[in-house]
Amino acid sequence: MKQPLFNEKTLVEEFLNKNLPPESEKPEVLHKAMRYAVLSGGKKLRTLLAVSACKAVGGTLDNALQAGCAVELIHSYSLIHDDLPCMDDDDLRRGKPTCHKKFGETIALLAGDALLTLAFEWAARAGISNPNRSSEIIIELAKAAGHAGMVGGQVVDIETTGISPSVDILQFIHHHKTADLILAAVVIGGIAGNGDKDQIENLRKFGINLGMAFQYIDDILDCSESSATIGKTAGKDKAAGKITAISVFGIEKAKEIAEKYKKQSMNTLINAGWSKNELSEIAEFVTGRSF
Amino acid sequence: MKQPLFNEKTLVEEFLNKNLPPESEKPEVLHKAMRYAVLSGGKKLRTLLAVSACKAVGGTLDNALQAGCAVELIHSYSLIHDDLPCMDDDDLRRGKPTCHKKFGETIALLAGDALLTLAFEWAARAGISNPNRSSEIIIELAKAAGHAGMVGGQVVDIETTGISPSVDILQFIHHHKTADLILAAVVIGGIAGNGDKDQIENLRKFGINLGMAFQYIDDILDCSESSATIGKTAGKDKAAGKITAISVFGIEKAKEIAEKYKKQSMNTLINAGWSKNELSEIAEFVTGRSF
Repeated sequence: MKQPLFNEKTLVEEFLNKNLPPESEKPEVLHKAMRYAVLSGGKKLRTLLAVSACKAVGGTLDNALQAGCAVELIHSYSLIHDDLPCMDDDDLRRGKPTCHKKFGETIALLAGDALLTLAFEWAARAGISNPNRSSEIIIELAKAAGHAGMVGGQVVDIETTGISPSVDILQFIHHHKTADLILAAVVIGGIAGNGDKDQIENLRKFGINLGMAFQYIDDILDCSESSATIGKTAGKDKAAGKITAISVFGIEKAKEIAEKYKKQSMNTLINAGWSKNELSEIAEFVTGRSF
Repeated sequence: MKQPLFNEKTLVEEFLNKNLPPESEKPEVLHKAMRYAVLSGGKKLRTLLAVSACKAVGGTLDNALQAGCAVELIHSYSLIHDDLPCMDDDDLRRGKPTCHKKFGETIALLAGDALLTLAFEWAARAGISNPNRSSEIIIELAKAAGHAGMVGGQVVDIETTGISPSVDILQFIHHHKTADLILAAVVIGGIAGNGDKDQIENLRKFGINLGMAFQYIDDILDCSESSATIGKTAGKDKAAGKITAISVFGIEKAKEIAEKYKKQSMNTLINAGWSKNELSEIAEFVTGRSF
């Protein structure tokens, strides 16, 4: 299935390339590692979601580009730290060596820290033109990425490795480790476009369902595709004894649930009058990846 | 020398204790590790600096408490990550086991990530009541903590370990690894108190000189005091072949330079009419630690 919003993706990559610190600037190795992690492939889905949500509420690409790219930096930092030896210990990401394989563990750790920090700088810069909603963007981003969001989900994912799978734990992990940041991308785009309360509420419903569908499909792909196809080590979740949609439900039921989340996300778009816009195109892409 | 601003420190600790996520909330181990890192001792100097700077420009403790505590969270995260095996590999911090010694490397890494993220949430909440300066606070904090600030200084500190010491490298490390965050604490306090351009400029001058004095004195203490006195492994910089004020200048010259920075910070306070206030009390404490 082809990359959605090809032209917008090019603008996102140009923004990232132009605004990430240059490799020639001291400390060079840190900046190289930051750029490597962010610019080496990836679909930039989170930024595209932010931009499309912004347009859906009446804003422009420019309104959401910087805040959307801030979400991309957070996604990139999380991948660097997830891949570290004390975490998932992975060698391959997007078909290339992981950041710590290329730059060593110390620089990878610090590049992740620097990207997380820079994300908030960018999100704050994005808020300068709309000061009344500046704090709202930062708080949304921090909640989605932090202890009650992505990091919390990551902790439970690791802590429950090897224990008996349960639906509650699975939902906690999928919700917080993955869906929260996708949800935040969509909502932040809506805030950047100055969306009203009802619009933000619709974006929130859409985002959480899309995020859950996304992670269910990731689990399905992990157990059914090769490493070459998915660009990272396949079958690793099972080998590591991780709780996944497959270990809890089996593959057929997992596909049904993914389909349910997909439908709920699409229905939200229809009800909000957004079924013909870019959000729909991205949702089709995300949920059409596997089956 | 006794802790400065004892009453204010108590209020800072109460704020941190009340607002950090409770240990009883899932994921419990993450929240335990976050609280352990932030609440196990420490002088809370950065928050006290923010609060005192806020008062100096005409604000109140309440104006700066949350933003100042955000700086404390960043300081705590940086200590957790600095102590990790792939970094300084330290077992002792503030006289207690380091976070990864107590909770394991994975949880320590993630607790650091969560504290860094929470810092920006708190800084954004602090900005809600003063939206026109909300972005300013976040940008100041992110610049001080990120690739061009603390993380950048940390990278150069590690990259230059074992190489021939030079003044340029030493100044880069001291400026960015340590002084930037102390400077940011002071400036953020000033912004939170709605300080004007001249006041912020004075705080900036004071902060950078105090920060540099602080790190020179740390280097001097590291080579002259016992682990029990300084609460962390003493003599480690030399053993690790790190570039320090001592390796570049020797101890006597390092003391002279520390004294120079101290004088410059005090002169800034005198010129700004702040020589009798709390900033002066903290500066006396910081620069009176060693000799």
